[in-house]
Amino acid sequence: MTIVLGDNQYGKAETHLVRVTRVGETHDIKDINVSIALAGDFDASHVEGDNSNVVPTDTQKNTVFAYAKEAPVGEIEDFGLRLARHFVDDFVAVRRARVTIEEYPWARINAAGQPHPHAFMRGSSEKRLVTVTCTGDDAWVVSGLSDLVLLKSTGSEFWGYPRDRYTTLEETRDRVLATAVVARWRYALPKVDWGAAFAQTRSALIEAFALKHSLALQQTLFAMGEAALKARPEIAEIRLALPNKHHFVVDLSPFGLENDSEVFYAADRPYGLIEGTVMRDDAPEPGLAW
Amino acid sequence: MTIVLGDNQYGKAETHLVRVTRVGETHDIKDINVSIALAGDFDASHVEGDNSNVVPTDTQKNTVFAYAKEAPVGEIEDFGLRLARHFVDDFVAVRRARVTIEEYPWARINAAGQPHPHAFMRGSSEKRLVTVTCTGDDAWVVSGLSDLVLLKSTGSEFWGYPRDRYTTLEETRDRVLATAVVARWRYALPKVDWGAAFAQTRSALIEAFALKHSLALQQTLFAMGEAALKARPEIAEIRLALPNKHHFVVDLSPFGLENDSEVFYAADRPYGLIEGTVMRDDAPEPGLAW
Amino acid sequence: MTIVLGDNQYGKAETHLVRVTRVGETHDIKDINVSIALAGDFDASHVEGDNSNVVPTDTQKNTVFAYAKEAPVGEIEDFGLRLARHFVDDFVAVRRARVTIEEYPWARINAAGQPHPHAFMRGSSEKRLVTVTCTGDDAWVVSGLSDLVLLKSTGSEFWGYPRDRYTTLEETRDRVLATAVVARWRYALPKVDWGAAFAQTRSALIEAFALKHSLALQQTLFAMGEAALKARPEIAEIRLALPNKHHFVVDLSPFGLENDSEVFYAADRPYGLIEGTVMRDDAPEPGLAW
Amino acid sequence: MTIVLGDNQYGKAETHLVRVTRVGETHDIKDINVSIALAGDFDASHVEGDNSNVVPTDTQKNTVFAYAKEAPVGEIEDFGLRLARHFVDDFVAVRRARVTIEEYPWARINAAGQPHPHAFMRGSSEKRLVTVTCTGDDAWVVSGLSDLVLLKSTGSEFWGYPRDRYTTLEETRDRVLATAVVARWRYALPKVDWGAAFAQTRSALIEAFALKHSLALQQTLFAMGEAALKARPEIAEIRLALPNKHHFVVDLSPFGLENDSEVFYAADRPYGLIEGTVMRDDAPEPGLAW
Repeated sequence: MTIVLGDNQYGKAETHLVRVTRVGETHDIKDINVSIALAGDFDASHVEGDNSNVVPTDTQKNTVFAYAKEAPVGEIEDFGLRLARHFVDDFVAVRRARVTIEEYPWARINAAGQPHPHAFMRGSSEKRLVTVTCTGDDAWVVSGLSDLVLLKSTGSEFWGYPRDRYTTLEETRDRVLATAVVARWRYALPKVDWGAAFAQTRSALIEAFALKHSLALQQTLFAMGEAALKARPEIAEIRLALPNKHHFVVDLSPFGLENDSEVFYAADRPYGLIEGTVMRDDAPEPGLAW
Repeated sequence: MTIVLGDNQYGKAETHLVRVTRVGETHDIKDINVSIALAGDFDASHVEGDNSNVVPTDTQKNTVFAYAKEAPVGEIEDFGLRLARHFVDDFVAVRRARVTIEEYPWARINAAGQPHPHAFMRGSSEKRLVTVTCTGDDAWVVSGLSDLVLLKSTGSEFWGYPRDRYTTLEETRDRVLATAVVARWRYALPKVDWGAAFAQTRSALIEAFALKHSLALQQTLFAMGEAALKARPEIAEIRLALPNKHHFVVDLSPFGLENDSEVFYAADRPYGLIEGTVMRDDAPEPGLAW
Repeated sequence: MTIVLGDNQYGKAETHLVRVTRVGETHDIKDINVSIALAGDFDASHVEGDNSNVVPTDTQKNTVFAYAKEAPVGEIEDFGLRLARHFVDDFVAVRRARVTIEEYPWARINAAGQPHPHAFMRGSSEKRLVTVTCTGDDAWVVSGLSDLVLLKSTGSEFWGYPRDRYTTLEETRDRVLATAVVARWRYALPKVDWGAAFAQTRSALIEAFALKHSLALQQTLFAMGEAALKARPEIAEIRLALPNKHHFVVDLSPFGLENDSEVFYAADRPYGLIEGTVMRDDAPEPGLAW
Repeated sequence: MTIVLGDNQYGKAETHLVRVTRVGETHDIKDINVSIALAGDFDASHVEGDNSNVVPTDTQKNTVFAYAKEAPVGEIEDFGLRLARHFVDDFVAVRRARVTIEEYPWARINAAGQPHPHAFMRGSSEKRLVTVTCTGDDAWVVSGLSDLVLLKSTGSEFWGYPRDRYTTLEETRDRVLATAVVARWRYALPKVDWGAAFAQTRSALIEAFALKHSLALQQTLFAMGEAALKARPEIAEIRLALPNKHHFVVDLSPFGLENDSEVFYAADRPYGLIEGTVMRDDAPEPGLAW
């Protein structure tokens, strides 16, 4: 028996940068957090401490900043592809580069009755995401979003489930359904209109959550995934993680009050967690996308 | 020398509730987090463990839920006043009740081209705040907001400061200015159009941040406070805490690149913290407001 | 009516530094997070953007690092006093300097059967705290701790409280009592054996929590404060904030099981919050300590 | 093309329970946070909202509490196995049950010179972890730990790396090396002395970090993994994620001070992240362990 090195990767995580671009007096900002992970021929570093193949994570950070200058950042998918391609192409030891980017939304401030040229307000806490993976020959793009918090105050039921000796839950034909969406979708193509695809996928997810009468959060998940796939033919599969953020009807009967689904206790923990993939039956293989 | 009990208070913190109200098919939701602190005649509990005056925090929680049912929550200032008044009036041992409420914003989802009657999306991570304090005879209302994140990509300078042997900062005529506003303002009156006052104060803060050419974050703070006081005559004073969320120009010269205020590193810590009060010179005494 | 500037302060928050000292082969480390707040003659910066009195927060950060080099950090009380004294004495515009330090505990690793000379493990998540305030003539020291999480699995009761229409809580003669202590104590003297005083105060708090049979968390609070004051005569007053981290007995009767205080649900929110001051009746005035 | 459901699972996350056991006057506590994920025949719930196979997550929570009563929790590996086995065996639709448990350490308080029978203090913020996966025929156990924060103040170098146009990092023969270990190790056997194996693996990781002179964090990672595998023959592989928590030597030369690796700035972001697997070359296949 020998002890050996298995899968490994390393890189600089969470290089948080803001890029300002100007057109005349008008500024635009891009606020992104970039994490890089490189895999390849790094055995010598692990086993002997020989770093001759190890691109320093400090260099990776510098590269992120320099690349943000050399051209506008653009869509995070494109920025991720530029960065990942660089590491794979320019360092022979790097066999796979994975770049994950979070983008934080900002809205332009209206002041004195008009859009201000250089003042901005953080939008929601929602994040736009991408993970790009490149090898010498190939590239995969997984876009996504997180922290999209949704709630329906009716239009949700839960009944018909099996019961055992540990079951106390009462069936309900009307409950609050709330979740914080994490969605990641894999594109079948390496070149997409990323901005439009993101916007339409996001809208499809939100609309499906709203419009689908829900008999289970699982059913809502599937409807959301289906809507995303229908909205953009380039999407091969979508993975959703939906916490069931429980809102319990408070029992007001001890106080002589009825509670007709009006007052809810918003619980923290425990919570349900529903995870699922929705895909095309002819989706290409995922390769190294995930 | 004797060891004695000094100031003390207790209560239930963070009762998180969602209240649904319905007008026909259309639902509205109110998402609030209520914390209560009672002061009064509680020495016996501390010194002897005699709880005959101690309204259980569990009862306080129940009261919050029941009050949310007995009438619509309405503006958080009004809900806080109702709750605080109850504890002071209905329990002789309670001399002062302080109710702090955070409200989380939700936006109605548009689906299938129209506002959905019962589906909502969390808006920004900004919070609306109130702290209401009641005694037997009096009441004070301090409204506010937090987590309002603002950024200007130009229109901010910092120079003319004193230098000592520990000073290395270079003066700048153009920098990014970013902050996460915490503002709390005290009303001079016990009865205000809370909703309108909140909206106008918030707008005044945001516009002043955008419009004021800044020579110091202190100057921006004062301009924001002044704008708030001018927007609503009922406000006696406003207290602002503005972290200076540093965005440093990345030195790209080692890579043969210029950085003309285009690429910034968004730092986490340390950060500047600027705190100040702006008030009317004829403001009434704050009493127990804070 | 005129709009005027009220109380204000500013400074650099959260300069996080690690100081290594060496005695022969043996290293020691000090891991602290320093926040500074200066008050004084800063009106011109607020009102006109004239920064001629404004010691940059960047300079403050540099000063922290330089001071950590010029002498060993020592006890955080002493380091805070050195820093606060510097700002008040060396800048005429600074009337009051407040330095708050958090210290994170580290334990030396034992390896190969002996204490390792330069390898360390983070101890608990507990923090040691100090806030030092200096003016030209005076100094105040408030030491403390936070994130000290304590639990008693019995020896706690809660009964005898008033009941109203919103009361549903059942009295208990045996419950779990758990809290996360935040304690801050003010010294009556400017010069104390800080290390010993901290250690004994901390022990007194923990022992009192353990040994006091509790009829209310308020009673435990008072006992803890009293023990601290008895342990160290230099302490004038102590302020405690004790969240009541509820552990609810799970109702297992639907499953045909008894639960004799064996299985508890550890709840997050809401929670009780008990705050109180315990002091000597002849304590000197607090001045600007808090 | 058809849209289909892919991999999916669901369950109750973060049921946080404290179990008290008593031997005479002496209490012991076990503080755990249990998350369950079930996979199996749940297509109907997703596609049609038919929940006849869906064990409610509420039932799962109840089961955790009931199981904690029916027998002592014991080692978290055993508790996870009992729970996972139950869901697979007792619900025909459940093909795979995965139970993840975090355990929080507590230490008995010493009071009045002796160990207190029922008072405890939270130990470090370190967590003990397990993920158990069961199918009808098989079971896999992955134990681990997280939030183990380690630091060496010397005995770490980094040099010999490749340089490109974006490289500015200077080589160093002496740096601070700090990390927050996340380790997960897969056992080759379904039955192990879990407590002893955990303790020895943890010690091996810590000692290797301390004792290995480090030329790269990768080298330290491999040494830690190797030490773990040597400590316990039942471990087939171990996966480590080691953030490089940078501690930068502060440049004090502008202040006329030398900094001979004495004063460090503890940075938050960005940080390096080193991830790797160390395994036996004859390790059995992982199956569904991860």
